Amino acid sequence: MNEITVQSKSRTDFIDITSSVQQFADGIGMKDGLITVFVPHTTAGITINENADPDVPADMETVLDRMVPWSGGYRHSEGNTAAHVKASLMGSSVQVIVKNSKLCLGTWQSVYFCEFDGPRTRKIWLKESV
Amino acid sequence: MNEITVQSKSRTDFIDITSSVQQFADGIGMKDGLITVFVPHTTAGITINENADPDVPADMETVLDRMVPWSGGYRHSEGNTAAHVKASLMGSSVQVIVKNSKLCLGTWQSVYFCEFDGPRTRKIWLKESV
Amino acid sequence: MNEITVQSKSRTDFIDITSSVQQFADGIGMKDGLITVFVPHTTAGITINENADPDVPADMETVLDRMVPWSGGYRHSEGNTAAHVKASLMGSSVQVIVKNSKLCLGTWQSVYFCEFDGPRTRKIWLKESV
Repeated sequence: MNEITVQSKSRTDFIDITSSVQQFADGIGMKDGLITVFVPHTTAGITINENADPDVPADMETVLDRMVPWSGGYRHSEGNTAAHVKASLMGSSVQVIVKNSKLCLGTWQSVYFCEFDGPRTRKIWLKESV
Repeated sequence: MNEITVQSKSRTDFIDITSSVQQFADGIGMKDGLITVFVPHTTAGITINENADPDVPADMETVLDRMVPWSGGYRHSEGNTAAHVKASLMGSSVQVIVKNSKLCLGTWQSVYFCEFDGPRTRKIWLKESV
Repeated sequence: MNEITVQSKSRTDFIDITSSVQQFADGIGMKDGLITVFVPHTTAGITINENADPDVPADMETVLDRMVPWSGGYRHSEGNTAAHVKASLMGSSVQVIVKNSKLCLGTWQSVYFCEFDGPRTRKIWLKESV
């Protein structure tokens, strides 16, 4: 298992970590298999989506904020219920196939760490399987 | 593959199954690898989220009910369309990394079975990979 | 890694690909393990849900359209932001356990490719792990 660290810059912040995942595969000399990218936080998630137009992750942040407003008469006293829900909507892990030492992603796909209660320093865990 | 059984208590019910997943790892003598936790139902899902404050899963249930109301003019004659949608929003499986025989989860993370059409007796399947 | 191709028929279209996933397992002579089904697109996703009543996927399409309307004052100039968001809500991959050469799915479960910006010709990648 390997760990990478990211620093989010605002409450909601999608951070492209694709190159870090490729570096992990390179570092362990992985040829073919599967990488699980896991977020050990409960107010952040992970997803795969478009990297070509920065308006796509920006729109995604906006739509998720509309779907799950920050203020909603929630019971959780920390006040960040919306972040917990959005974390589960995106999910805590993604799988990426590796072939010939390269991540197999579609033309426009990147792996995004999804901050929903930043800014914070966050960890991401990487694990290979065969 | 191993199977565990849970009993949900109400229509929507998040049940912490983390200790059962750890017991599965213990039982097969797993040292390092990945466990896939899979829900073989279509009106229940699975997610990883906070276990410290019971208001968090309670709020999540409330928010999901707001996002996908039980009554919505749906076509499905069984009347539980909302449960099907929420099952897919949470997802049918999660992955948990195992290291030195212990589940690798963040400080506040637990694995939750998510009932959306209970109360029912439900099954969860566990599968290790290396 | 193996690739299958599907042709969606409308903007939103849930396509049952379970038999293709079973054929992949048969083709590689897989006995026990896990199959990762991965969608290399950013406006389509994948989920597991009910196959008995076609009203279930039809309702799911309707509910997702209500949650994330096609027109929403989005910034992304291609105009398909809603499809990107719905792709991430469903997710880019599912895991299916294989036992005794058969996919382990619940009685009512099928694997659905989820088109959100069709009609298009789409690819799905399959990868086994042990």
